[in-house]
Formats: sequence, C-alpha cells, structure tokens
Amino acid sequence: MTYCVALRLDRGLVFMSDTRTNAGVDNVSATRKMHSWSVPGERFITLLSAGNLATTQAVVSILDERSVAPEDRDPSILRAPTMFQVARLVGQTLREVIAEHAPGNGQQADATFGGTMILGGQIAGMEPRLFLVYPEGNFIEAKDEAPFLQIGETKYGRPILVRAFDPSMSFEDAVKLLYVSFDSTIKANLSVGPPIDLQTFEQDELDPPEPVRIAASDPGFRAVSDGWGAALRHAFDQLPDVTLPG
Amino acid sequence: MTYCVALRLDRGLVFMSDTRTNAGVDNVSATRKMHSWSVPGERFITLLSAGNLATTQAVVSILDERSVAPEDRDPSILRAPTMFQVARLVGQTLREVIAEHAPGNGQQADATFGGTMILGGQIAGMEPRLFLVYPEGNFIEAKDEAPFLQIGETKYGRPILVRAFDPSMSFEDAVKLLYVSFDSTIKANLSVGPPIDLQTFEQDELDPPEPVRIAASDPGFRAVSDGWGAALRHAFDQLPDVTLPG
Repeated sequence: MTYCVALRLDRGLVFMSDTRTNAGVDNVSATRKMHSWSVPGERFITLLSAGNLATTQAVVSILDERSVAPEDRDPSILRAPTMFQVARLVGQTLREVIAEHAPGNGQQADATFGGTMILGGQIAGMEPRLFLVYPEGNFIEAKDEAPFLQIGETKYGRPILVRAFDPSMSFEDAVKLLYVSFDSTIKANLSVGPPIDLQTFEQDELDPPEPVRIAASDPGFRAVSDGWGAALRHAFDQLPDVTLPG
Repeated sequence: MTYCVALRLDRGLVFMSDTRTNAGVDNVSATRKMHSWSVPGERFITLLSAGNLATTQAVVSILDERSVAPEDRDPSILRAPTMFQVARLVGQTLREVIAEHAPGNGQQADATFGGTMILGGQIAGMEPRLFLVYPEGNFIEAKDEAPFLQIGETKYGRPILVRAFDPSMSFEDAVKLLYVSFDSTIKANLSVGPPIDLQTFEQDELDPPEPVRIAASDPGFRAVSDGWGAALRHAFDQLPDVTLPG
C-alpha cells in the first residue's frame, strides 16, 4: 500500500508521500512516489502516486519523455495551457497504461494493475489547483469544502486531518499535521513506511525548493511522533468524565 | 459496514457495537449487533457481529435455539465446559451458515455472505476470555500483547485505541475511550452509525447488567464527541513546533 496526502492551503500546496513498496510481506523496498516538474517562473507540477508500481512508474516515465523528447512534446504536461488540461493528460496516460496491461476481455480498470494519483500545481497567472485522478482516467478537484486529498491507506490518518486541518494554517503547522497523520498510519500499517517525501509550494513562487526526504530518525518527525502519544493521552484525560449509562 | 470493539481490562470486559445496517446507501436501517446470554452465577457470554446480516442473524438464532429448545441442547453455548469450547461452537455455526449459502462450487467462505464475530465471556472458576471468530470458523484470542479486538470498519478508530488503551483503566475511562473511537469512525464513515450498544462485564460478577443503548443525543456521548475536536486541536498545538526541513 501507500499513503499520500496533499493539502490546499490559503498560501499554497503541501504534498507528502511515504516510500514503502511491497509485493508480499517478504518483498519490501523503498521507492519515490512523488515526482515534480517545473518550468521556472511559468509552472510547477507535483504528482503523487498509489497503486501498482509498474503502472505508476510507466505513467511518470511517459509524462517525463513527453516533457523531454523534442519530437514527442505534444501533448506535454509542460505545455498544456491549464492545470485542468494537465489533469486530463495525466488521467489519459494512466488509463492507457492500465488498459495496455488489462486482460483481453475489454476490462478497462483491472484492479491488479490499477493506480490512483494526486496532481497539484500552478501555472503562472492562474490559481494553484489540486486533483485526484482515478484509474479510469477521470478526476475530481479539491474545493473549499474538501481542501485535502488522500490516496492509498487513507483511513488511519484521516480523523486528525478532519479535526485539525485549517486552510489558513502555516506551512510549519501543515507539515506538523501531516507528520501526525503519517505517524498514525505508519504505526498501524506495515505497508506504509518511512522515509517520507515532502514538497511545499508557495502560491506564485513558481520556482519552489526541491522535495525534501525525511528519515524516520529526523528530529522534527521524531519529536512529533514521540510527543503525539502523550498529547493524545492528555487530550483524552481532559475530556469530561463519563458516568456509566444505565 | 459495522464497527464493534471489545476490550479486555484487568477488571473485566467491555463491549461496544454500532447499530447501522445497510444494503446500499438507500437501504439503511438499525439492528442490534450485540447479543448476550447468561446462566446467572455460572456463565456470561456476549457476541458482537459484523458482515452479512442474514448470516450473523442466522448464527445468533441457531445459538439461541440450541440454548432454549430442550431436545437440541447439545451442543449448547450454555453447557460447553470452557470459553474455548464456546468459541469452537460459534465458529462451527458461523462456518456452516456461510457454507449453506455459498455457491455450489465448493467455495467455503464466500465474501458476500461472510461474517466475523467477537465472542467474550466468563465461566465460573475460570478467567474471562475474548475471541475473534473468522468466517472460516477458526478464531484467535485477545492476549496481553493485543488486549482489544475490533471488527468491521476498524481503521478510523484504531489509532486512539493503540495510543490510549491501558488494561488497568476504569470502566468509565474505557467507555470514554470507546466513545472517542466510535465518534471518529461515525464521523468518517456513513456505514457506521448510532445508537450504540454497550455491555460492561465485571470479572466474576456472573449476573451482569443488561446492555445499554446509547443514543446519538446521549449527554455523555455528546460531551465526548463535542469535546474531542477541541481536545485534539489543543493536543496538536501542544506538540513541538516543526521547522521546515531542507
């Protein structure tokens, strides 16, 4: 499995992804699930991926080739006029890769080779946008009512996002929130594991810093992970006492 | 879906289950997923069930008949000599009911008609025991290393159990903990819903109180539900500040 989250904040976008990949519990490895492209000053795009690794790597490679090889530049995510068109390109590529390996019976979204992606970014002069792309190639956008997206093993880390996310929060608080959400998931599910990749993207800063890799031993991550257990128990103790009903 | 939890505390057992049942989102109803049997002073048994409602109701009915109809009393969960034998009976009954409705291709654990159960109780002179019974009829027991069991939609409510459960806690704190775990799940998943059933069982009190039904409007549940959001945000604020890495 995998765990990836993207937040749409008032000041920009924050992406986080784990790196564990496994084919059975005795075949475990680490792989990057976060890929970024940019045309400095003009556009910035980040893609997070969950699902079959052959599928998601093929999608990234095809998008890469199209943005590098001159004779194959159209359609390219680096030239599409809007983030919506970028999302269409990613969705179409994902659907085609899955279809290529689907059994010959016309099934278009075979679960085995499936994949799901989060796409976010900004093109100069337009708003930052965030999309969740399904294996069928269609997609939804993160709007004000649901300003974050998750893929992979989403359930363990969701309650804290639902309760503590605030679009006006700082990047530092957003990263802290994601640390808590990832720590809860990593503690509960062997198929999600460190290191963690982090990309912050400040709105209109179209030449953002490189993604950062955070090890399990990173002092900031450790402090949140170690502190959260005690903080949760303290929060629990603060709740009003319950008298046994009946 | 469903959410049921049982805790093995030093002082006894606590069971909680939701009541929502649905066949599609336009066919939603409430049903009891907690069933208790007792021979006052001699034994006490509680069963929680998740999965196909036809299957789990049939299992409960068969166990009920065997414990009521004189000519069919053996094997009966009210006469089995140990909780282990009770678990074997429940497992065997569950497996038989599933097999009866499985397609004729020899498949023994058809997911569609599957079910999973938590069984707990005590027989006089022995320790209280807690089991998780699988659709195949086999089961595992809650031991000191993993002293609580969940079935159904388990992921949203698991992190708080992992972090705050303590076998030495009071029944009141245990119920508060379960309120938090259930509230997180109910907020995240439409297929889990109130009212909630609660059974507390004090060790060696082999004539325990009846299960209690807790409405969404119950003041104790409301206080925990309303207070948890603020408590979580406070806990989050208490964590050490994060500096953006990189």
